[in-house]
Amino acid sequence: MKKILSVNAGSSSLKFKIFAMPAETVIASGKFERIGIEHPLVEIKYGDGQKFSEEAKVKNHSEAVQILLDKLLDLKIIASYDEISGVGHRVVAGGEFFKESVVVDTNNERLIEKTFELAPLHNPANLMGIRAFKKALPHAVAVAVFDTAFHQTMPEENYLYAVPYKWYENYSVRRYGAHGTSHRYVASVAADMLGRPLKDLKLISCHLGAGASICAIKDGKSFNTSMGFTPLAGVTMATRSGDVDFSAVAYMMRKLKVKNVSQMVETLNHESGMLGISGKYSDSRDILEAAEAGDHRAYLANEIFERSVIDYIGQYTFEMGGVDGIIFTAGIGENSQETRESIVKKLAFLGINLDKVNNQTRGKNTFISTPDSKVKVMRIMTDEELLIARDTFNLAK
Amino acid sequence: MKKILSVNAGSSSLKFKIFAMPAETVIASGKFERIGIEHPLVEIKYGDGQKFSEEAKVKNHSEAVQILLDKLLDLKIIASYDEISGVGHRVVAGGEFFKESVVVDTNNERLIEKTFELAPLHNPANLMGIRAFKKALPHAVAVAVFDTAFHQTMPEENYLYAVPYKWYENYSVRRYGAHGTSHRYVASVAADMLGRPLKDLKLISCHLGAGASICAIKDGKSFNTSMGFTPLAGVTMATRSGDVDFSAVAYMMRKLKVKNVSQMVETLNHESGMLGISGKYSDSRDILEAAEAGDHRAYLANEIFERSVIDYIGQYTFEMGGVDGIIFTAGIGENSQETRESIVKKLAFLGINLDKVNNQTRGKNTFISTPDSKVKVMRIMTDEELLIARDTFNLAK
Repeated sequence: MKKILSVNAGSSSLKFKIFAMPAETVIASGKFERIGIEHPLVEIKYGDGQKFSEEAKVKNHSEAVQILLDKLLDLKIIASYDEISGVGHRVVAGGEFFKESVVVDTNNERLIEKTFELAPLHNPANLMGIRAFKKALPHAVAVAVFDTAFHQTMPEENYLYAVPYKWYENYSVRRYGAHGTSHRYVASVAADMLGRPLKDLKLISCHLGAGASICAIKDGKSFNTSMGFTPLAGVTMATRSGDVDFSAVAYMMRKLKVKNVSQMVETLNHESGMLGISGKYSDSRDILEAAEAGDHRAYLANEIFERSVIDYIGQYTFEMGGVDGIIFTAGIGENSQETRESIVKKLAFLGINLDKVNNQTRGKNTFISTPDSKVKVMRIMTDEELLIARDTFNLAK
Repeated sequence: MKKILSVNAGSSSLKFKIFAMPAETVIASGKFERIGIEHPLVEIKYGDGQKFSEEAKVKNHSEAVQILLDKLLDLKIIASYDEISGVGHRVVAGGEFFKESVVVDTNNERLIEKTFELAPLHNPANLMGIRAFKKALPHAVAVAVFDTAFHQTMPEENYLYAVPYKWYENYSVRRYGAHGTSHRYVASVAADMLGRPLKDLKLISCHLGAGASICAIKDGKSFNTSMGFTPLAGVTMATRSGDVDFSAVAYMMRKLKVKNVSQMVETLNHESGMLGISGKYSDSRDILEAAEAGDHRAYLANEIFERSVIDYIGQYTFEMGGVDGIIFTAGIGENSQETRESIVKKLAFLGINLDKVNNQTRGKNTFISTPDSKVKVMRIMTDEELLIARDTFNLAK
C-alpha cells in the first residue's frame, strides 16, 4: 500500500487529498487558506470523521508544506515521510508542451515556467507547490497533471482559430480547453457504466460548475471542447460570458472609453455570464430560485445558460456524426436535478426520455435516461483528485 | 404592370435591378462603380442581352441617380419616370427599430440615421441612395428593406449575450444577424419545394458566400442566426474570423502592442477566416484547388470552414428539436458542388443521402438529397433583389 498526495496549489491556498493506492481510498483531505495573508487557516479531515483545524502562521507554500507534513505525522495519518511515494499536482495550463501527465524533473519545471503566460494566475502558484513538495519530500515522485493535456488530441481543424496563422505559429494562440482531468475521468466511468470500451464510444461530457465546459470524446480521446485559448470561451458560466462577438465588446470598449483590453477581459470573466444577465446572481441555485419567484432576468440567465449547453451538445453530436452517451458532472451537473431535467427534456427529439426517479437521487453515478432511450444520459460524480493520484501512482511505480 | 427598382447603394457604388411587377420579370439591371472616384463607370444590361456601358462623370449618388434615370429613358427601358411606382432599398442594419420593410418617410429617415453606428460603412450610403431617389422620383414610394429585419423575431435568449445587461439596455448591444432578406427568400422557396406551409417547417438556411451566415427558421420566423452584433461572428468566412475567444485576441493585442481595438476588428474582418488560415486565398474556389494540389493550409482552411457550418447546423437542429430541411444558397452554397457534397456526407448520420446527379446541376433550385433522405437538402438560388422588389410592390399598392 502506497500513499499518494493529490495537490492543488493556488496563489494563497493549498488543497490536498491523501489516497492509499492502489485501493484508491481517501485517508485524509484538507486545505490551507490565506497563505501569506492575515489569519492563515489549516484544516485536515481524517480517520473516522475527525477534523483538525487551526490558525497557523504560514508565510508561504514551503511553510505550509512543512506544517502539513508535521501534522500528518502528529495525527498519525502517516508514520513517516517515506510512506508518501508520490505527490501529484494539478497544473492549469500545459500549453502544447504537455500532452499527458509527467514526472516533474528540472527540464519540465522549465517548460512549466514557459506556460506561465497562458495561465498567469494559476501556473506560477502550481509550480510553487511542486517545488515546495519536492524540497520537503525529495524521495517522492513529483507529478504534474495538466487541465489541458487531455485536449491535446484535438485535430487541428478543431483547435485552430480562423485568424492570421502566424498567431498560432509565433504566439501559440489556439484552443487549449480546460477541465481535461474531469472530462477524462468521467469518460472512463461512463464507458464502465455503458459496458463498452471507451475507444468505441462517442461521448459528450458536460462539466457544469461555476466554470463550465463541454467536451466531445471520440475514440477515447478529446475531439473538441468549448473552452478556448483561456477558460473565457464556450458556454455561459456563473460570471464568464462564454462565446461573444468580438466586435460587440470592441464597440463597448469605445462606448465606455476603456483603453485597456485587459479591463474588458476582466469584465467578461467576472461581471458577465449568469451574473451579467440576471444582474444579481451568479450561483445557479439562486438563479433557479429567483426565476421560480418570477424574476424575468434570472429566468433569462438560466435559459441562456441551458441554450448554450444544448448548442454545444448539438455541434459535437454533428461533428462526431452521432452520440452514444451524454454526461452531466461538476457542481451544477451533479447537483441540479432541475437543470438536468430541463436540458434532457429539450433533447427529447433524440429519443431520450428522462428517468425521473434516478434524476432525483443524489451523490452517486446513475443513468438519468430511461433504459429505452436511444442516447444514454448519465450523472457522474467527477473526481479530479483521484485521477491525479492514479496518474501519480502509475508514474511513481 | 408596375415597374419597381431594387437598389443597393454602397459608399461609392450603386447596383440596381428593375422588375416588372407582379410578373417579377427583370427588365434591366446594372451598376455604377467608383462614384466620386476616378473613372466612374456605369453599366446597364437590358432587353434581349443588350448592354450599355460608359465612363461617366459621377460626383455623387444624386448625379448617379439622374444619369441612371436619363439612360433608362434613352434606352427605352421606361417611357416616363411615372412608370416607376416604387424604389426598394437594401439597408444593412435596422437595429431594433425595424422589424419589417417600411416606407421611408421623414421619421424613418431619422430612425435610419440612428442606426449609422451599427453599420458605419453601409447605412450612411444606403440612406444617401434613398434620399437621391426620393429627390429624383418624388412620386415613387421609397421602401427600406433591412438585412436584419427578418431576425427581429429571435427570442431574447437567442439574441442576448451573457454580458452585463446594461450593455443591451443602454447601448443596444445584442445579436442582430444579417442576410435576413436572403434567408427569408430561400425559406419561402424551400416551403414551396417541400410542398408544406412554411409555418410548419423547421429549416436551416446556409447562406455561404464571402460573407456567410446560418439561420434557424422555425414557425416561418428567424429563430437564431450565426452573425452577431456585426457580421464578424459565426461561421468562418473568406476573410472574417467568425467566432473566436475574446481573450485570445486580447492576448494578441498585448503581444503585438496594438493600442486600438478597432485595428483588431479590422484584422478579424479582413485578414482572418480562410485567408488567415491559408495565408494566401480567400476565395473558396482557390482554396479547394490549392487543397487538391496538396497545400495543407488551404485544406485546413476548408476543413475549418466546413466544420463551422456543421457546428451551426448542429446547434440549430438541437435548438429547434429537429430539422426538416437544410438549404444551401449564395456564392459557395449555390455554386460549389464540392462544398455541398462534403458537408452533406458529414451529415449522413441524420439519414441524408446525397443525390449526386442533382448536386452536379447548376443555376437552378433543386433537391440535393435523395427522395428517401430523412432530412431534405436543397440548393436554392437566392434573390434578395426580387424580395426587395416584392416588399416594395406590396407597400406601394
